[in-house]
Amino acid sequence: MKFKISASLHYEAATPVTLFLNIRVRPSELQTLSKERFKITPDSERAKLVTEQDGNHFDRVKVTSKEVTLDYGVTVEAEHQLIDADLLRKVPASSLDAQVLPYLFPSRYCESDRLYRLAWQKFGKFSSAYDQVLEITRWIYRTVEYVPGATNASTSAYDTVTECAGVCRDFAHLGVALCRALSIPARYVTGYAHRLEPPDFHAAFEAYIGGYWILLDATRLAPLNGFVQIGRGRDAADVSVCTAFGVMTAPGRYEIDIEAPKNFEPFTEEDALKAAISLDPTAKPAAVAEKAKS
Amino acid sequence: MKFKISASLHYEAATPVTLFLNIRVRPSELQTLSKERFKITPDSERAKLVTEQDGNHFDRVKVTSKEVTLDYGVTVEAEHQLIDADLLRKVPASSLDAQVLPYLFPSRYCESDRLYRLAWQKFGKFSSAYDQVLEITRWIYRTVEYVPGATNASTSAYDTVTECAGVCRDFAHLGVALCRALSIPARYVTGYAHRLEPPDFHAAFEAYIGGYWILLDATRLAPLNGFVQIGRGRDAADVSVCTAFGVMTAPGRYEIDIEAPKNFEPFTEEDALKAAISLDPTAKPAAVAEKAKS
Amino acid sequence: MKFKISASLHYEAATPVTLFLNIRVRPSELQTLSKERFKITPDSERAKLVTEQDGNHFDRVKVTSKEVTLDYGVTVEAEHQLIDADLLRKVPASSLDAQVLPYLFPSRYCESDRLYRLAWQKFGKFSSAYDQVLEITRWIYRTVEYVPGATNASTSAYDTVTECAGVCRDFAHLGVALCRALSIPARYVTGYAHRLEPPDFHAAFEAYIGGYWILLDATRLAPLNGFVQIGRGRDAADVSVCTAFGVMTAPGRYEIDIEAPKNFEPFTEEDALKAAISLDPTAKPAAVAEKAKS
Amino acid sequence: MKFKISASLHYEAATPVTLFLNIRVRPSELQTLSKERFKITPDSERAKLVTEQDGNHFDRVKVTSKEVTLDYGVTVEAEHQLIDADLLRKVPASSLDAQVLPYLFPSRYCESDRLYRLAWQKFGKFSSAYDQVLEITRWIYRTVEYVPGATNASTSAYDTVTECAGVCRDFAHLGVALCRALSIPARYVTGYAHRLEPPDFHAAFEAYIGGYWILLDATRLAPLNGFVQIGRGRDAADVSVCTAFGVMTAPGRYEIDIEAPKNFEPFTEEDALKAAISLDPTAKPAAVAEKAKS
Repeated sequence: MKFKISASLHYEAATPVTLFLNIRVRPSELQTLSKERFKITPDSERAKLVTEQDGNHFDRVKVTSKEVTLDYGVTVEAEHQLIDADLLRKVPASSLDAQVLPYLFPSRYCESDRLYRLAWQKFGKFSSAYDQVLEITRWIYRTVEYVPGATNASTSAYDTVTECAGVCRDFAHLGVALCRALSIPARYVTGYAHRLEPPDFHAAFEAYIGGYWILLDATRLAPLNGFVQIGRGRDAADVSVCTAFGVMTAPGRYEIDIEAPKNFEPFTEEDALKAAISLDPTAKPAAVAEKAKS
Repeated sequence: MKFKISASLHYEAATPVTLFLNIRVRPSELQTLSKERFKITPDSERAKLVTEQDGNHFDRVKVTSKEVTLDYGVTVEAEHQLIDADLLRKVPASSLDAQVLPYLFPSRYCESDRLYRLAWQKFGKFSSAYDQVLEITRWIYRTVEYVPGATNASTSAYDTVTECAGVCRDFAHLGVALCRALSIPARYVTGYAHRLEPPDFHAAFEAYIGGYWILLDATRLAPLNGFVQIGRGRDAADVSVCTAFGVMTAPGRYEIDIEAPKNFEPFTEEDALKAAISLDPTAKPAAVAEKAKS
Repeated sequence: MKFKISASLHYEAATPVTLFLNIRVRPSELQTLSKERFKITPDSERAKLVTEQDGNHFDRVKVTSKEVTLDYGVTVEAEHQLIDADLLRKVPASSLDAQVLPYLFPSRYCESDRLYRLAWQKFGKFSSAYDQVLEITRWIYRTVEYVPGATNASTSAYDTVTECAGVCRDFAHLGVALCRALSIPARYVTGYAHRLEPPDFHAAFEAYIGGYWILLDATRLAPLNGFVQIGRGRDAADVSVCTAFGVMTAPGRYEIDIEAPKNFEPFTEEDALKAAISLDPTAKPAAVAEKAKS
Repeated sequence: MKFKISASLHYEAATPVTLFLNIRVRPSELQTLSKERFKITPDSERAKLVTEQDGNHFDRVKVTSKEVTLDYGVTVEAEHQLIDADLLRKVPASSLDAQVLPYLFPSRYCESDRLYRLAWQKFGKFSSAYDQVLEITRWIYRTVEYVPGATNASTSAYDTVTECAGVCRDFAHLGVALCRALSIPARYVTGYAHRLEPPDFHAAFEAYIGGYWILLDATRLAPLNGFVQIGRGRDAADVSVCTAFGVMTAPGRYEIDIEAPKNFEPFTEEDALKAAISLDPTAKPAAVAEKAKS
């Protein structure tokens, strides 16, 4: 499925500021990029950094003007891998690999260490990791109200449990934290989401089950198969759209657009009962099938 | 310098529990291991995991008995690299590499995003990153009281600023958080520390300056050149001595021993003004000298 | 019903310390005291303070010795007023009086301002304030695990929602906070509780409905009609057993005893459906009956 | 000194909402009111409540319309009592009266229980309570940056220590918390402040020394003798301009005006070294002089 994406960002800064931007789509086996462009006005000192662990593409920009505009565009051929849900349900709790260990530990916005009892109390009874994760996603959808402006940059999963309000970032953090509390590795993902209204950067989360990173979105604001991944990490701290070192004088302003072909058919909540979606070709279906047999 | 290390840990658990232990010394160019042994009583299902990003050595142990004892021992030839402090002072603020980016972002126990103003107010005036980092370390030593039992597993740098009390873990978290708030990448390190009284696992922190990871310890409880590194990460969440998934019925009990040769001469606070210590051979002295010249 | 109460407290302090103790039973229309005694060993400078708003009896003790022992004893004729639950259910939401206003606002350990959504989501559907309050009490009982040592002196209702563990103090704080979030005034009460095992100081809460302060205890650890009130306030900060200004070198040690006559019959959870219990003769049954009619 | 005050408030609500407003000037021996008016448009069900402990004047308004405007006006003859600072310095630490006890305990936004070490470390060395309080006020002025929008309704003194930014409310909370941590009773006061730019509701704090409630303002945004008190309490929770039970659809909008006679001469920071200001005629100068002698 081919997506055409554009993003225009505008910032105001008081003094020389260094911005770390994470707005480029992350190339992968399942995301093929073409016609990528990134323009900074006025032209500024810049560097591209690719993180070691997650392979996210950052742009470091040294802003010396009072205002700066960043224009990004790309066309992405994205394949959303479908995985048989029943197969996932049969997978025994995986013996965790070393590379997923960091996603099991608590992080800045996902204090899984403090959600242990809550997670087991609410989701411990479900028999498979996949059903636990589906139920976590449903519970967040039912419990947390989507309220723009209700939270801020310090809000964490610990807060959202109690305050019951937030935006996509908060929904995803809570999902990540609850998974980790149940010993299911989980990470935070950012992306461009087709049909999200109003268009904006979006966040969701991935849970590691049977060797797959399964994509989940408790907000239900956009279909999972319209999600094009920018980056992934332990939480929003790793893949913030913009981390500024210096003083910003106004909140950033965005304009986002993501177009899909006309034949796009949204993947629904109902579909998730039969199949899971992954944007990360970590595991091979064959390997999972084999595990399910063993 | 050759160190002989032994650690004996004892845990009690109510139910089947999976432990992730991080007590093995991390082998590196500067730490050569010999005679390593790791015994679990009673014998339990185990696996060794080496993390991708930091190269920490974890042992995953599935405990099915009510009690478990872990005996670890190793001999380490550790070289503490000395770096000319004046050279470091001349190094221009390095253009950060991609691999240090994760150590610039806030983490579970190091909420650098909320310490920005405090850090600049107190340490912004020092002219070089090395002097900022030395002053951070001194300030923590003066301000935070070493009080065993004053903090718990949820305590973070944000708390320690206000509560002014803690243990080595809290001192290190605050150091890491303040460095990151000043745009200096920093990470948390754990280790065995010669001359620490009473003997225990220890924690310190590393700041990234001029291509080096510089070792710092605001507690002043043990000489820097007696520190043998176990692991490193964003904060204690990454290198916890023991992360348990399940219910522990009592706090763990430890016995630690680390011996050094008789000719051991402690590296003092005074020494730090002239030279910095690194346990990570990331950069070459030549490269730094070159940077200082340019 | 006549209760014989004794309490012996032992503290160790490093330096001269001033203690504010709140261990005396609060005399009231429904609690008549006799044979009260309060002995301090060694004898220390002391003063008795009765708070203006809540009428709690404090003892201020200036401790100049390393250790101090306080022996308190009293006999209390306590009447637990029974109020027809159906009558309470018919009472329209009372127009709040000025004197209950402070118990509607958030306090140190009861951040009702942050629990608004949670409270309405979970308890908003119940038709009467009395049923909301009963359901809050049941929900806390089901959700929060009684775990001595799980919390500390900083733990608040905000934490308990997420951590799902605590002691009587935490159960009561959460009850208070949820009531206030629903616009029901609520306060924290401390007391001696007959049949509490092991004997200890106890905490519960009171909700203001139809002009009555209704006693509630989400721990279910002791019968409501065996509760003798020491003090009441916005939360534990107001009626802490011991507030110390100075440095304590060890946690306090207590020995508590409360005896009741042989014919004591415990008031059960079942009973609460038919009648409510109040220890505060604020309103007259006649007045409530009248309100219910109007 | 005669002040003419007017305040116009505008709120938008989604559903029936009950507002508790605290915008009326609190009458006292030192504040004599005349020409008071309070108009609500559209006219709504209302009641006036005077709190027991602090004597604050609240208006309870049941809003059933989508928007509501409140117009308040009053003329106040306010006397700012001057107290000789040297006399205060000589007053021995007062043996606290029962009526100030509540102002010694931690409250929602003033977690003095967690600031004990910080307070003693920074201010313990000053010899008199008055000098401690002056230094607390200066330290806050130097350390905390006045940044509108930097904080929100959940921000507490605990946060402000670390985040070093806030508005008048945050400055006052921190002052209150630090005083209490030093065993000096302190309370939060709100008022209309002449010469505050832009005109707005203002907050400051009072410390209890030698039987006086001394007025202090760490923001230095308006002269102390231009402050007309609305209310006082443990913190902002007690004297919030507007506590809403229900859903507000937009932040409140205010218009405030406070005029003073032409001969108004501002009381400066310099003046505070010689005299303290009190708006509360609790103690008599004679009594203080006597204490200072004894």
